[in-house]
Amino acid sequence: MPQGERFIERLKAFIESDGFTRFVMVLIVANAVTLALETSASVMAVVGPVLLLFDTFVLGVFVIELALKLLVYRWRFFTSGWNVFDLIIVTIALLPASGPLSVLRALRILRVLRLISLLPQMRRVVEALLHSLPGMASIVMLLGVVFFVSAVVATKLFGADHPAYFETLGGSLFTLFAIMTLEGWADVAREVQATHPYAYFFFIPFIIVSVFAVLNLFIAVLTNSMQEMQKAELQAEEELTARQSGVLLAELASLREEVSALRKAIVARSREETVP
Amino acid sequence: MPQGERFIERLKAFIESDGFTRFVMVLIVANAVTLALETSASVMAVVGPVLLLFDTFVLGVFVIELALKLLVYRWRFFTSGWNVFDLIIVTIALLPASGPLSVLRALRILRVLRLISLLPQMRRVVEALLHSLPGMASIVMLLGVVFFVSAVVATKLFGADHPAYFETLGGSLFTLFAIMTLEGWADVAREVQATHPYAYFFFIPFIIVSVFAVLNLFIAVLTNSMQEMQKAELQAEEELTARQSGVLLAELASLREEVSALRKAIVARSREETVP
Amino acid sequence: MPQGERFIERLKAFIESDGFTRFVMVLIVANAVTLALETSASVMAVVGPVLLLFDTFVLGVFVIELALKLLVYRWRFFTSGWNVFDLIIVTIALLPASGPLSVLRALRILRVLRLISLLPQMRRVVEALLHSLPGMASIVMLLGVVFFVSAVVATKLFGADHPAYFETLGGSLFTLFAIMTLEGWADVAREVQATHPYAYFFFIPFIIVSVFAVLNLFIAVLTNSMQEMQKAELQAEEELTARQSGVLLAELASLREEVSALRKAIVARSREETVP
Amino acid sequence: MPQGERFIERLKAFIESDGFTRFVMVLIVANAVTLALETSASVMAVVGPVLLLFDTFVLGVFVIELALKLLVYRWRFFTSGWNVFDLIIVTIALLPASGPLSVLRALRILRVLRLISLLPQMRRVVEALLHSLPGMASIVMLLGVVFFVSAVVATKLFGADHPAYFETLGGSLFTLFAIMTLEGWADVAREVQATHPYAYFFFIPFIIVSVFAVLNLFIAVLTNSMQEMQKAELQAEEELTARQSGVLLAELASLREEVSALRKAIVARSREETVP
Repeated sequence: MPQGERFIERLKAFIESDGFTRFVMVLIVANAVTLALETSASVMAVVGPVLLLFDTFVLGVFVIELALKLLVYRWRFFTSGWNVFDLIIVTIALLPASGPLSVLRALRILRVLRLISLLPQMRRVVEALLHSLPGMASIVMLLGVVFFVSAVVATKLFGADHPAYFETLGGSLFTLFAIMTLEGWADVAREVQATHPYAYFFFIPFIIVSVFAVLNLFIAVLTNSMQEMQKAELQAEEELTARQSGVLLAELASLREEVSALRKAIVARSREETVP
Repeated sequence: MPQGERFIERLKAFIESDGFTRFVMVLIVANAVTLALETSASVMAVVGPVLLLFDTFVLGVFVIELALKLLVYRWRFFTSGWNVFDLIIVTIALLPASGPLSVLRALRILRVLRLISLLPQMRRVVEALLHSLPGMASIVMLLGVVFFVSAVVATKLFGADHPAYFETLGGSLFTLFAIMTLEGWADVAREVQATHPYAYFFFIPFIIVSVFAVLNLFIAVLTNSMQEMQKAELQAEEELTARQSGVLLAELASLREEVSALRKAIVARSREETVP
Repeated sequence: MPQGERFIERLKAFIESDGFTRFVMVLIVANAVTLALETSASVMAVVGPVLLLFDTFVLGVFVIELALKLLVYRWRFFTSGWNVFDLIIVTIALLPASGPLSVLRALRILRVLRLISLLPQMRRVVEALLHSLPGMASIVMLLGVVFFVSAVVATKLFGADHPAYFETLGGSLFTLFAIMTLEGWADVAREVQATHPYAYFFFIPFIIVSVFAVLNLFIAVLTNSMQEMQKAELQAEEELTARQSGVLLAELASLREEVSALRKAIVARSREETVP
Repeated sequence: MPQGERFIERLKAFIESDGFTRFVMVLIVANAVTLALETSASVMAVVGPVLLLFDTFVLGVFVIELALKLLVYRWRFFTSGWNVFDLIIVTIALLPASGPLSVLRALRILRVLRLISLLPQMRRVVEALLHSLPGMASIVMLLGVVFFVSAVVATKLFGADHPAYFETLGGSLFTLFAIMTLEGWADVAREVQATHPYAYFFFIPFIIVSVFAVLNLFIAVLTNSMQEMQKAELQAEEELTARQSGVLLAELASLREEVSALRKAIVARSREETVP
């Protein structure tokens, strides 16, 4: 093994060691605390520079960690979605946070989300949640079509009289989303009703259809996780049945042996008879 | 085959071809975009006529498509609910959208719903949703009776003092629907309570009963989709048991054959012995 | 059979006939319509007396119907909860609706609820809903204790500063019920927070505990209806297993016959041998 | 047995007797009523001293009860969480309720919670609820991280312009909790939107993620209680299968015995024949 490879191997062992992982986790939690403290103006006035210094230090550690991982895993680095997740979060923190991009300063806190990619039990929860998304795809698409169509209708019908809610397509989509969550929908409906007496024929069906669709979204997720439970159950039953019929088969086998012995006994007797 | 029939056959093949379906789908999506753009006054000022021209073109294609389908399928056209759905949507778009019917202009966007009738996976979702409706019928009827009775009571008791909420039966039904969705119910209840000190005895039971009924509606839908899962499970188990007991039966059958052969051998030998 | 008994028998057949039930149902629906019309002042101005006359006629029919049922079933009349339900509803309609009891006039509409007691499928839904109540009893009791304790604490702590929400124990219970339904809770919490900086430690835990309890109420109902589904499933499986093992037993029985025949063949041969 | 131990035995029998438990329960319920009455100023003006005297009496009984239990069970007293629960509640009632701790006076009502620790069916409900918590741990942690990160982002982005909602980290957490419950979220979002045009990209994803997480929390609890149902079902099936295959095994065993007896008979006869 050439020296370069041996070095890479050692680096890999270091990066994957429990000690290093724990060190990064402690850094993340400490950074979460300092980022929380940075939201307080009075704290910033006293220890502001120290907090920002620590922030830079943590970011530096993250950059080095990612660089080492890239060095060790090369292209395989990108095969794990969690690595890409970490890379994006650290990249956001590195972008120049000035001028029009000053909003990115606030997004530094996103690095606390690395806790999720670091802790296996958290990863599993997120993976389970993501796993339940495909089953929701068709209902989400249907809901999307219903939303789009309703938003265009609402903008055309109510936009001129109720610009606060339905002026643009985007505004209508927001208002309809709020109505779907049943948040303040009655006030919106009463207001629109004042100028369009038949507005109820729009709002009530929209609520019923969208809430029913969300409910079925929920049932899709639930049924999905039930089906996995059921698969486990079916397997347990399969084992049970296999065990029980194993006992029966063993009993049958010994019966067959008995019959076989019987046949041999008869054959033996008939030979004895034919010999003399 | 006469020439007319051959022409119909070719038309059918054309209408049912993947290429034609894809072309219609692209048209619908493009039309969705132009209809969305039509909601913006600034866009309309620049490319308005082009958008309206495209709109007419799409409608023309839809009309021709439906005419061809009617020609090909004749009366069987109406056996599919989805065809009727398409026909209604296109008819709405063809109605004169002026005077009292100007609202129909806004309903042109409904043609985007044709996406649902065009995509098989979307059709299946809608059919599944419709499939879960019959199981909800009796609870919906019960909820209807509760709503009707409550609305009459509320109109009679509170209508005079709170015309904003309970003046007419329709107004009361709307207010009670809002209360069932828990939207702003506490404000309505507090207002009514100011004039009718025992109004709580109306609102709290109404909320509990209607929310409980909705919850049972939800459970009915859920139980329905569970039952279908269960049917599949039972079938899997049936196959499993059948397979296992098939093995046992085969084993038993071969054993029986062996015993049977043994008996025949003995009977044959005893005949041989008695003959000489 | 004495003449009196024969008369009772004929009455019973009449009351239980489909024609009579249908007649009563039509009356209820028609009465529902007239009671709905009575809420409109303009309709009452024109056909008011006719509607009230019809109302009295329907009530008369109901009274006669109940009287006949009492005559026919005697004490057994009270063994059905639905009969008692009908009796209470008709009694409410008969009470003098004047002075302090004028509210009872509005309750005449309750007779529409007789639709539920008349239609078997509606009865079954209500019976199923009532059937799911016992499983909820302990959580409802727990929720009751949590509500009572929270209401006393809120009244004592916030009553003096926020009389609109927490002046009396009853007022606190109402406010807490509204908070549990998440209706406007944030506004109440922000208002109280202004005078009691640590009020969050009351509101947030109350919301979490009460919503969690309601969620478990829901799960209790759901689990109950699932368990009934499961019972049916278990029975189906039991039949399946019984059928399968019936096949195996039949196979075994024929095997035993084969063995038995074998034994007879051997015994027969040995007799033949010993005879000569 | 020394006299001291005999006395302890008798004390234990007394404490665990149904009569004593019922007496304590009656005291708690009566105390609940008097504590409720204490919230009414007019009642306090008339019978205030009596109520307070009764309160002191009940507290005295509770202290004696706990002292006896400590005497009887010694250190084992602390092995039951319910005993510790009772001890904390009584200790709160004994703390001096003056000056900064005056809030503790209002917490005297907490002793009504002893109803839960006293009634076995209530205990079981609470234990079942607590039992479902561990399954929720990872999603609650995930939700916590999402809340923390979102609160820091919201404080940094919107804190300066909307101090009412997002001034401090604590305030942001409260506002986000309200948004998660969908309470008045549209008003907050519209207000923030006025100064930050892209605020929707914060609010809508936050609502979708947090509501989806809560929904999965719910599913986790539901799946947990389903799994327990399923375990019971699997056991019932196991018994069923065992019973059925027991019948088959018995049948097979008797068949084998028959074949075995037959063989022995043949062997014996062949020996007899060869002997002479």
